[in-house]
Amino acid sequence: MVRNARKVNQGMDLVKQLNHIFYPRTIAVIGASANPEKAGFMCIASLVEAGFRGKIYPVNPGLSELFGLKAYPSVQAIPGEVDLAVIAIPAELTISAIEECIGKGIKGAILISGGFKEVGTEIGLDLQVKIRDIANRAGIKIIGPNTLGVINPKANLNATFQPDLGASKIGNVAVAGQSGGMCNYLAYALTNHNVGVSKVISMGNRCNLSFDEVVTYFAEDEETKVIILYVEGLEQPRQLVNVARQVVKRKPILVYKGGRSEELNRASLSHTGALAGKYEFYKAAFTQGGMIIVDDMTELVDMAKALTFQSPSAGNRVAVVSVQAGPGIIMADKCHEFGMRLAEFSPATKQILRQLASPLNPIDNPVDLAWKALEFDACRDMLRVVLQDNGVDAVTVAAIFHPAMIPLISAVIDVAKNNRKPITMCLGSFSGAADAEINALENSQIPAYPLPERAVTGLAGLVRYGEILKALSLKLPIL
Amino acid sequence: MVRNARKVNQGMDLVKQLNHIFYPRTIAVIGASANPEKAGFMCIASLVEAGFRGKIYPVNPGLSELFGLKAYPSVQAIPGEVDLAVIAIPAELTISAIEECIGKGIKGAILISGGFKEVGTEIGLDLQVKIRDIANRAGIKIIGPNTLGVINPKANLNATFQPDLGASKIGNVAVAGQSGGMCNYLAYALTNHNVGVSKVISMGNRCNLSFDEVVTYFAEDEETKVIILYVEGLEQPRQLVNVARQVVKRKPILVYKGGRSEELNRASLSHTGALAGKYEFYKAAFTQGGMIIVDDMTELVDMAKALTFQSPSAGNRVAVVSVQAGPGIIMADKCHEFGMRLAEFSPATKQILRQLASPLNPIDNPVDLAWKALEFDACRDMLRVVLQDNGVDAVTVAAIFHPAMIPLISAVIDVAKNNRKPITMCLGSFSGAADAEINALENSQIPAYPLPERAVTGLAGLVRYGEILKALSLKLPIL
Repeated sequence: MVRNARKVNQGMDLVKQLNHIFYPRTIAVIGASANPEKAGFMCIASLVEAGFRGKIYPVNPGLSELFGLKAYPSVQAIPGEVDLAVIAIPAELTISAIEECIGKGIKGAILISGGFKEVGTEIGLDLQVKIRDIANRAGIKIIGPNTLGVINPKANLNATFQPDLGASKIGNVAVAGQSGGMCNYLAYALTNHNVGVSKVISMGNRCNLSFDEVVTYFAEDEETKVIILYVEGLEQPRQLVNVARQVVKRKPILVYKGGRSEELNRASLSHTGALAGKYEFYKAAFTQGGMIIVDDMTELVDMAKALTFQSPSAGNRVAVVSVQAGPGIIMADKCHEFGMRLAEFSPATKQILRQLASPLNPIDNPVDLAWKALEFDACRDMLRVVLQDNGVDAVTVAAIFHPAMIPLISAVIDVAKNNRKPITMCLGSFSGAADAEINALENSQIPAYPLPERAVTGLAGLVRYGEILKALSLKLPIL
Repeated sequence: MVRNARKVNQGMDLVKQLNHIFYPRTIAVIGASANPEKAGFMCIASLVEAGFRGKIYPVNPGLSELFGLKAYPSVQAIPGEVDLAVIAIPAELTISAIEECIGKGIKGAILISGGFKEVGTEIGLDLQVKIRDIANRAGIKIIGPNTLGVINPKANLNATFQPDLGASKIGNVAVAGQSGGMCNYLAYALTNHNVGVSKVISMGNRCNLSFDEVVTYFAEDEETKVIILYVEGLEQPRQLVNVARQVVKRKPILVYKGGRSEELNRASLSHTGALAGKYEFYKAAFTQGGMIIVDDMTELVDMAKALTFQSPSAGNRVAVVSVQAGPGIIMADKCHEFGMRLAEFSPATKQILRQLASPLNPIDNPVDLAWKALEFDACRDMLRVVLQDNGVDAVTVAAIFHPAMIPLISAVIDVAKNNRKPITMCLGSFSGAADAEINALENSQIPAYPLPERAVTGLAGLVRYGEILKALSLKLPIL
């Protein structure tokens, strides 16, 4: 919940406006339907199944009840206040419905309906302009049109037409996406990788809510530590860049650009109504805005996970500590790909490692723990000396889960306690076989990954964020 | 099992030799131990827990039994034949142990022990040379030394010191890796992604078994459809290239090179005793060998999955079919990154799509199914017309799982039946929520992926393999 409201343009209070949408007390669903194939049915199912604790009012003159909820013939007929309207009716009926909602005093709306700017007709564009003007006059925010909706799992809110999303894990990553589908995949991926989401918003055609406004809201949101944006095209990229440069001082922003190939412009043009511009242009703008650019959803999730748990890195010199040599090599390769360097240990560090390591094992970076991984004291002391080396900025550790690896896992948790350098860990296992250990690591703020490369990807996010913060604090261009 | 044996150098029969290791009837574990921290304990645990159906003989003069199995003071003392010896004793004792095994008539050995060429000492190197010579004289293969071992899940064989690996899913992908750790991660990843393994072999120091020999064996292996190699460095890359060029005509080979950055050479030098050479050199050699080069384990698994289920693609013109626009855009981006092209539909195809699609949706590539995804007939007919377009070589489909998507899933399965063009599908869901549908797809040979990009990665493997086969059949250089 955002508590410290900031005044924004037109005298409206953006934070209050969006709080009405993310934390409504009462919701009317205009176009509620008893037909399970209709969005108006799915919207009610979503709200009910997620366990929304406020009042839900299905609105449809042809219904008396739905899911055991009393239905109303119109918004006007609802007794008491309505905070949020979720609207799922044909485009041509939306203007009068929104005007009726505003007459009733609603404080925000989610316009699920399609048939606006995205269809490329003059009628569609005209309808969208009218809706924007009505919303602006009323001083409310309308999400969409052509949106999946929003979720806020901590508030048991699933205001989308995808009931499944109510099962999203509560976390600290906020997602704003120009595609409902991509928002949906991201909620799955962040849940499946034990990260979770604070809020997800499908921006749709963005009739009166822009990416920079959402970023401003997430910056103030106490539940959000990391912001993810999925962007296809922006009318005013400069606004987002300016806002982002301020926000990233407090919270990292990861951005994933859809429509990166020229060939694709025709596809995303027809999607949410904005031409996906040249990728190189967007890359330069996002970089200037201090955002971390990611080209792959797995990378996005891996970096978001690390940034949720760990502090940014002061530098790019990485120590790799591995139980087996091969995964250590793969991690070093990946460090190189991400522009990070293998740390050079000091002679003092090497001397101590020589005493602690198995006589047959080299004590270079990557550090090969080998059978010493079975000994808690040896692991703790080796990790500690590596972390304390002034030439080391960050550490990543790789192991394959086996009960015999518990001493190593405990040692990682132990050294991470009094340490400010980033640590990530790969703990390979069959799905589900190491859940207790993964939870133990993540409860200690150490992000765990299933593959060695992915633990390095997480670290790369922390290194990149550190570089951005350094450039901003020194007022240098971000490279 | 490999039935058609081929004669190889020195009159030895490579296939028979390796069959003794992958399909032993009886196994002796030299250095069996009652100490759960010892490899000799873990090796017995691995064999027992995987449900090996043959005889297991723990060998240790200090033990009378282990895991309810009678222990023997020496290999000689074992009554009856021993096919395979798994050896986990200190390096300096291995020569006499192997000689004793050969005296007993064993037909293959797995030398778990370390302390050979990989430690970089003259003693270590000398020991390894002696072992190679003994093995060659006896006409047997010794895996290792310094190996994790081998698994063959279909034969309930887990001849490694990692008991967990017995739970590997039975599949059609064979893995040979120069790192036991990487073999382990790959077995996990292939199992976790519903692919499975036919056989896994940790090559270790490769004292008398080379990558080209293993590839020759896997080429003959009826259980293997796809071969994965994890290579750090090769003494004789030309041998592997020559063998691979023949083998890839029948089965694709995916290769993942460890030690890709120059910085890393010191790390992998000390690993399995071979200098990891310049990556550019290996890339050129692997390409010439018709292998598919992969730089990421997720990519490796995704391509292996597609290649297990589908035929190679005749070309690189891809049709993207998606329920939501955003994922379609992301898939098109990924096609571009992999050097594939978005197919241009014929006027006839467009005309039919126009009749079948929702009036508001564009009928360009990517095809946006939108609400038509709820109708089996519409999906089937749209997919069919796209697949039948002469300008389309391969199709990828993206959906988010919901019971309402079952008509689309059924349509994909239906059109895939009488079709020779490759198809992959992304079916996003929370982990486990769509298992029945994923199994239905994969039982129909359609590989399913959790993220849109990854379904395209799978397709890219099929396109690449098609290009390699075409170049080989035309006797053109592979580019």
